[in-house]
Amino acid sequence: MMEKYCFGVDLGGTTVKIGLFNPQGEVLEKWEIPTRTEDKGSHILPDIAAAVQTKMQEKSIEKEAVIGVGIGVPGPINDEGVIFKAVNLGWDVMNINEILGGLLGVPVKAGNDANVAALGEMWCGGGKGYENMVLVTLGTGVGGGIIINGSILTGSTGAGGEIGHIHMNDAEPDACGCGNHGCLEQYASATGIVRLAKRKLAVTTEETVLRNEEVTAKSVFDAVKAQDKVAIEIAEEFGSYLGKGLASIAAVVNPQVFVIGGGVSKAGTVIFDYVEKYYKQYVFPGCRNVDFKLATLGNDAGIFGAAKLVL
Amino acid sequence: MMEKYCFGVDLGGTTVKIGLFNPQGEVLEKWEIPTRTEDKGSHILPDIAAAVQTKMQEKSIEKEAVIGVGIGVPGPINDEGVIFKAVNLGWDVMNINEILGGLLGVPVKAGNDANVAALGEMWCGGGKGYENMVLVTLGTGVGGGIIINGSILTGSTGAGGEIGHIHMNDAEPDACGCGNHGCLEQYASATGIVRLAKRKLAVTTEETVLRNEEVTAKSVFDAVKAQDKVAIEIAEEFGSYLGKGLASIAAVVNPQVFVIGGGVSKAGTVIFDYVEKYYKQYVFPGCRNVDFKLATLGNDAGIFGAAKLVL
Repeated sequence: MMEKYCFGVDLGGTTVKIGLFNPQGEVLEKWEIPTRTEDKGSHILPDIAAAVQTKMQEKSIEKEAVIGVGIGVPGPINDEGVIFKAVNLGWDVMNINEILGGLLGVPVKAGNDANVAALGEMWCGGGKGYENMVLVTLGTGVGGGIIINGSILTGSTGAGGEIGHIHMNDAEPDACGCGNHGCLEQYASATGIVRLAKRKLAVTTEETVLRNEEVTAKSVFDAVKAQDKVAIEIAEEFGSYLGKGLASIAAVVNPQVFVIGGGVSKAGTVIFDYVEKYYKQYVFPGCRNVDFKLATLGNDAGIFGAAKLVL
Repeated sequence: MMEKYCFGVDLGGTTVKIGLFNPQGEVLEKWEIPTRTEDKGSHILPDIAAAVQTKMQEKSIEKEAVIGVGIGVPGPINDEGVIFKAVNLGWDVMNINEILGGLLGVPVKAGNDANVAALGEMWCGGGKGYENMVLVTLGTGVGGGIIINGSILTGSTGAGGEIGHIHMNDAEPDACGCGNHGCLEQYASATGIVRLAKRKLAVTTEETVLRNEEVTAKSVFDAVKAQDKVAIEIAEEFGSYLGKGLASIAAVVNPQVFVIGGGVSKAGTVIFDYVEKYYKQYVFPGCRNVDFKLATLGNDAGIFGAAKLVL
């Protein structure tokens, strides 16, 4: 019987990551090409097609042996593969499944990058063994991906899982990147934690190691681990916002597990100490028993999830 | 070709509503039987089976002509038909699909009553023509049902769409029925609106018709329609909580439409004047364009949705 393969593509603003997988979830090859955004991004999909075809030749993989090519893209995209806009790539509305599928002659399935990463974590990462999960990515912003019965919840305009923009605080004076005030991402992202820290440092006279160096999400949680009192207060505030936000999400989609990824999650399970406590305080009792896990695939979540899209 | 039929059953704490439908969504017969909760509710499913079988004989419908029997039940229930508990009915854990299916010899599919009502409104009611919708039921409490790509979002423990228990207010002194403080249902249900009204009346000296009679959700919105200033302030507060709550839901599941039902919705589209304004203020911009509709099936939403479960 012929061996089967699939490709997972993670399209970013500067590089395209590509993985060759077998259907069992093993990555056989992994490489990158640059994202050429010039000329309205018109080279991007042909470049990806060429990279996939070159790899197929190199490994003597026939077209018939390729189940398909999945691709995660940074923008809102519907279940048919239509991307509405991707400013970073210079793209306007187009159907990625049809264009890349036409270039390659194999089935192509596209999804939003955050949602695709969630699928990857479910397949082979922190969400392995679960079918109803929410991936919470705490990076520069707060992203999310929601998996229901093993499938991505895309939403009617591709904005499913935009959990960073749940409104949390009427009194927030600063604007979020989205233009609103008081979004979850303003408190629970890496930059949000720095904001909370700076506000705390401006009003407390308490001694803290956080005054000695540039404040980052990492330095806050390092100080928490060293029992720094001010850092712990900041972590409590972070946990209160994120725990409350996840409680709202649970009352809507009732997941089995929250998988926490992104730069902030590198602090480790210490963040759960602060998030779970507030989650349990605010959540609907029927949703209280949920697991908290760390994401494990890091930057590879996108290629794993993209490959899983076509399986 | 043989005519096909299906039955939709809405199991309540005091009565069971049953409808005989054709697959096009027309209700051919509609009747009720009492819910006998004695003996740990052990008569309920046999009573329903007997009622369905009697109707089949009366109308000379062969078993082969019955596509199935759908049933909405008041409690958390998973996709396999296992109900975890239904205190109102005296039931403990059991598989409704198997038991009622065994009694009838036709396929049976059970779902949570609020979720099933949402499916009914999508099939033949206010959500007709949409595939991604959230039903918001503003009654004694606030219930919800979420439909994604035409199917119910059940959740991992049957608590999907428990939107009445999204946390809204840290400063709420009163407890919600669920034991938490500050749930959406404490402000947006019929009883919630009365609470808001009483609080407002206690602190304002402004003249208002609301002092002349017993305050209800209906009397508040009647006064709003008559331009009563205090009633309008109460409606603003209601709209602010509900609009904000729906904005959180939209950032998670990104629906095309919110369908508003339950007793409070009898006030009509006037409630949208207060809800949409705050929704648009707080929602993630990518989810701003959503439709607001009134539910149209009233108490029949349950039998419609139950019938749709088996189609």
